[in-house]
Amino acid sequence: MDKKTVVVALGGNAILQRGQKGTLEEQQANVRGTCEQLARMVLSGRWKLVITHGNGPQIGSILLQQEAAKQTVPPMPMDACGAQTQGLIGYMIQQSLHEILSENGRGDIPLATVVTQVIVDKDDPAFSDPSKPVGPFYTAEEAQEMHDQLGWDVVEDAGRGWRRIVPSPDPVRIAEKDFISILVKNRAIVVASGGGGIPVTEEDGRLVGVEAVIDKDLAGEQLAEDVGAHVLLILTDVPQVKLNYGKADEQDLDSMTAEQAKHYMEEGQFARGSMEPKVRAAVRFVEAGGERAVISSLAQASDALEGRAGTQIVAS
Amino acid sequence: MDKKTVVVALGGNAILQRGQKGTLEEQQANVRGTCEQLARMVLSGRWKLVITHGNGPQIGSILLQQEAAKQTVPPMPMDACGAQTQGLIGYMIQQSLHEILSENGRGDIPLATVVTQVIVDKDDPAFSDPSKPVGPFYTAEEAQEMHDQLGWDVVEDAGRGWRRIVPSPDPVRIAEKDFISILVKNRAIVVASGGGGIPVTEEDGRLVGVEAVIDKDLAGEQLAEDVGAHVLLILTDVPQVKLNYGKADEQDLDSMTAEQAKHYMEEGQFARGSMEPKVRAAVRFVEAGGERAVISSLAQASDALEGRAGTQIVAS
Repeated sequence: MDKKTVVVALGGNAILQRGQKGTLEEQQANVRGTCEQLARMVLSGRWKLVITHGNGPQIGSILLQQEAAKQTVPPMPMDACGAQTQGLIGYMIQQSLHEILSENGRGDIPLATVVTQVIVDKDDPAFSDPSKPVGPFYTAEEAQEMHDQLGWDVVEDAGRGWRRIVPSPDPVRIAEKDFISILVKNRAIVVASGGGGIPVTEEDGRLVGVEAVIDKDLAGEQLAEDVGAHVLLILTDVPQVKLNYGKADEQDLDSMTAEQAKHYMEEGQFARGSMEPKVRAAVRFVEAGGERAVISSLAQASDALEGRAGTQIVAS
Repeated sequence: MDKKTVVVALGGNAILQRGQKGTLEEQQANVRGTCEQLARMVLSGRWKLVITHGNGPQIGSILLQQEAAKQTVPPMPMDACGAQTQGLIGYMIQQSLHEILSENGRGDIPLATVVTQVIVDKDDPAFSDPSKPVGPFYTAEEAQEMHDQLGWDVVEDAGRGWRRIVPSPDPVRIAEKDFISILVKNRAIVVASGGGGIPVTEEDGRLVGVEAVIDKDLAGEQLAEDVGAHVLLILTDVPQVKLNYGKADEQDLDSMTAEQAKHYMEEGQFARGSMEPKVRAAVRFVEAGGERAVISSLAQASDALEGRAGTQIVAS
């Protein structure tokens, strides 16, 4: 039987957990746990794997470091910082997954990270409505200065201080889709589009980096479409999608159709910036022809991929 | 005629020039000029391209930023910093080269960066004789503190202050060679092994990052061997290798055999840490079966590749 292709979108907790400081050792230990789940998918012999991941804490650290050294080292814009996190996180994942595959006699499977740009529309309405907080906290005075000198959009973040906000545009196409497709066809395991990809716009055929953050699940969906994946597996910190979350009649969903999912979204069942974009990515994938999308937790990832756990989303 | 494969090793000046501050704009402008040379090789229709590059100034900036923010953000070891620079520099190269190829009607060629680990021998004598200065300058007191607290090896650098020194071991194998080979076979352009690769040792089948810097030309040579390249093209800031450099009888070399090159090296003709490792990489490549190695300047890169400029090194 021919192997099917799955794009696995890892949540933030797959790399760094709340309350951790962010040392390389901590991140490597988390990644090792994550890769044990990923290795099970590979070792089943049924799946070709493309892996994508978030980069929130890592890009946050780079922005803090840039800020601290800005008198001596020119800070880079966010597209360049995103590229750095793709290198860093990709390195951890490819090293760790290779290690586990080697322990299981499959160290021969080619495996690495591809630096990935994701094309967004320069007329995306998100560019006139920045919404995604990034980087360090500032005082009101500092925030005003950043706004005046650098043109940043800033907002106050729930009493914790002021932060920069950037647009979160919709992904349109993975710039390196042919490059990644060659690898998938040849059964290599690919880490791609980390942190939602490096956001770029197309201007007269040129790709130009923009200061924005693409939602990593929506970017993962685009990646899944562009490489012709059969399944999109979105991992988060809950085992299933819930209806009436936190209420007396809270209910776990084993499965839903795209139609049902859209209905629930209209009802406002899913938290914005959290479960909502995951469900939206799942719907988009199956409506674009994907066989199945799955939302589950890291701990149940390989069972969810096999249809034995998580919430399964199908076209109809 | 089947295309031949060339590994092009870019010198530091291809990305950042002396005296520049290191803004993204400066680096992008330099990279654009570099990619114009690279594009000529691709557009000739005769070459499949693998590109590698240094990362000295970029890893230096990251080390400064880490130092400045170390009270709030845990600094990463050098292997992780190297991975970050691969993402950053790879992003600039793939974006810029794609742009020029698109302008010339060849935007269809798949092109991206592969995060690359380079395996070194943990018993390499370099580990007991660190020699490569990295990162910021310190006062004698700070350097002593780094030595005592972190175990760093430190040296005084010609009156400019104290610096950390790390080992510069020999590359043994490109960990991602099969992954990169798939891409080369399928005529994708690959940026790989940036900054000499992320140095790792093999321990019980595991890859473990080490605090070291691999010479980027020697790593490029290993990459060329591992992907079965025909030509290794090493670019620097002089058009040809010279004998009796800076003396009255200075002489440009159009070509030399491996035998001659080794003789010149024994005579001490080439500066350590500068031209010497380039000549050593060239000799190693042709002795391992490579057709030809070439050392030239960025400005003459595509002519040198065609044998019309630079210093050509052949086995005999």
